[in-house]
Amino acid sequence: MDLNEKALIAHKKWNGKLCINSKSPVNTREDLSIAYTPGVAAPCIEIKNDPENAYTYTMKANTVAVISDGSAVLGLGNIGALAGMPVMEGKCVLFKEFAGVNAVPICLDTQDVDEIVKTITYLAPNYGGINLEDISAPRCFEIEKRLKETLNIPVFHDDQHGTAIVVLAGIINALRVTGKKKEDCKIVVNGAGSAGIAITKLLLRYGFKHATMCDINGILHKDYDGLNWMQKEMTQVTNLENKTGTLADALKGADIFVGVSAPNIVTPEMVSSMNKDAIIFAMANPTPEIMPDLAKKAGAKVVGTGRSDFPNQVNNVIAFPGIFKGALEGRASQITEEMKLAAAEALANLVSDDELNEDFIMPEAFDPRVAEAVSKAVREHIK
Amino acid sequence: MDLNEKALIAHKKWNGKLCINSKSPVNTREDLSIAYTPGVAAPCIEIKNDPENAYTYTMKANTVAVISDGSAVLGLGNIGALAGMPVMEGKCVLFKEFAGVNAVPICLDTQDVDEIVKTITYLAPNYGGINLEDISAPRCFEIEKRLKETLNIPVFHDDQHGTAIVVLAGIINALRVTGKKKEDCKIVVNGAGSAGIAITKLLLRYGFKHATMCDINGILHKDYDGLNWMQKEMTQVTNLENKTGTLADALKGADIFVGVSAPNIVTPEMVSSMNKDAIIFAMANPTPEIMPDLAKKAGAKVVGTGRSDFPNQVNNVIAFPGIFKGALEGRASQITEEMKLAAAEALANLVSDDELNEDFIMPEAFDPRVAEAVSKAVREHIK
Repeated sequence: MDLNEKALIAHKKWNGKLCINSKSPVNTREDLSIAYTPGVAAPCIEIKNDPENAYTYTMKANTVAVISDGSAVLGLGNIGALAGMPVMEGKCVLFKEFAGVNAVPICLDTQDVDEIVKTITYLAPNYGGINLEDISAPRCFEIEKRLKETLNIPVFHDDQHGTAIVVLAGIINALRVTGKKKEDCKIVVNGAGSAGIAITKLLLRYGFKHATMCDINGILHKDYDGLNWMQKEMTQVTNLENKTGTLADALKGADIFVGVSAPNIVTPEMVSSMNKDAIIFAMANPTPEIMPDLAKKAGAKVVGTGRSDFPNQVNNVIAFPGIFKGALEGRASQITEEMKLAAAEALANLVSDDELNEDFIMPEAFDPRVAEAVSKAVREHIK
Repeated sequence: MDLNEKALIAHKKWNGKLCINSKSPVNTREDLSIAYTPGVAAPCIEIKNDPENAYTYTMKANTVAVISDGSAVLGLGNIGALAGMPVMEGKCVLFKEFAGVNAVPICLDTQDVDEIVKTITYLAPNYGGINLEDISAPRCFEIEKRLKETLNIPVFHDDQHGTAIVVLAGIINALRVTGKKKEDCKIVVNGAGSAGIAITKLLLRYGFKHATMCDINGILHKDYDGLNWMQKEMTQVTNLENKTGTLADALKGADIFVGVSAPNIVTPEMVSSMNKDAIIFAMANPTPEIMPDLAKKAGAKVVGTGRSDFPNQVNNVIAFPGIFKGALEGRASQITEEMKLAAAEALANLVSDDELNEDFIMPEAFDPRVAEAVSKAVREHIK
């Protein structure tokens, strides 16, 4: 039986991967009068008098919403709200299983940016945080930006920031393995969508100096036609020499390749043209930009992919549950850049010097220390 | 310790009366690949190909949303979205505890009718049904009407229809006790908000011929100034003689009083002016329109209230969990008038001839047969 069949059978059996359970038993009339009328009026009045009390008397304190519009689901593209639900339910499962956070799946049946922003604003009182998910670029940037400006709870687009955190964690450890210095490294990020842009931004924030972004037509530069507003912003902080050319041109003399793009578009020749001990994160799914064995043979020292059947899997699940756990526990009003950097460093540090090698740069998804380390790092950076 | 104190302590301990749990264990890489990527793509594609598959592969099939705008919460009035949350969580607890239905509490931070309708429309794909709650009249009528016209899942405003079903069930049994005939009974409903209007409509639909509505200024009639559009509609089907006057005037010679209004506004003299064996449903909370002992002394035969410490409690909890259980199980696209009538009759029939007496006309909230009987009645009336 192949994986698709297994997944369909399992999903049919579950008939929804989540259930909503009561923490308050209702077995007697008194139970009823405490959990519901008339007793429930008392916490309502306390919250009316001071909105902060919602964190004491309701599930807001430990609940996030996982919200998508179904416009960019997995590798499936724009499949809409209804068809995106299994993914959002799955994400909520991971929140609970990996970090004990309640998460509510919400697929919005609109893809209009203004409507999405308004709807999430109306929903926000119910939740302690908003995890945006699988929303296409550049809409995702605007939605996140506008919500962060107005809401007093964390808003976090996992496809951007979760991915960026995990990639940075991997790169930190790849530097440990190779002895390269961040200030000197030339990085090429291929793919100029939400993940590629967020990764580039976080790497620059971490202290890398030389980043170049490419998309399907080659190197992004200031005179490149047809870029969206966020890509244009990126040409101000990347490719500072304003070079033009292909991905192959970009990779010559580079130290690090980060791919969030398409299968098999990096050739062994391109890897060979990179600096010694090249670091390759080939995260196209399910087929990477270059297969690990080919990359290694062409001279790469460290290779990561999105897959669990190769070493060094880049998997958001080691980041987002702990990020929100920490943000909720510390009542953060936003996820800051400092928190993201601290989370990446905490993840990297979970791999000890003894364990660290070119095929082991990432903590395991099932390592029970992961969510705790990430949430601690986040909590320590709440202002 | 009084009830308010107990309720605050309990709510603090719960810190949210609901939790969201995973039905799909994630203990191994294979678990992860089935519940999440890459396996989750398979159910997504099935739903994309046929939206009906959402009922097979997601929690839509057994999940309702309990949605309020916080505009008319309990007796507390317009306390807003955040402060209304304990009530919505409580309602969700009852859905689960009494009928095994998953329910998600949603308080919307807008009280604009258009925005509420749009927001619920965007949210609808996630749920198998929408339970509207604690939305002020006449906005609740328009919101429900517009949603019913466009959504293909049941939309049910419990403050209206749940109350109406339970009152009708009680009146059916009060008729059994008193031997009165519905065709001959004169009914007075005091309170012309959402519950009063829905009760009156359902009683007329059941076959009562003579209903009069009153509000704080007296009898509703065709020339009454300041009525909202729904109240005006009601003057076309009630008070057919177009009488004017006070509540006391209306009650002279009436058989049934239904109060969803204010404490202590019915006097023993008014009850004495009613027909023999009067039926009184005095549901103002926590203090009824007239206390049961006073009403009985003044000649009433059957008295119901909203309170659990008197006989004949009128409590929505015997209706809404079973209503949605039946609608979800039978995949109803709406809750029809026939279903409401059938649910009321099923509730009434749970009280056997042997058990029935003037102080026992309602099945008990904790009677395990209740949700099953109601859901069966609903399922049998799905077209």
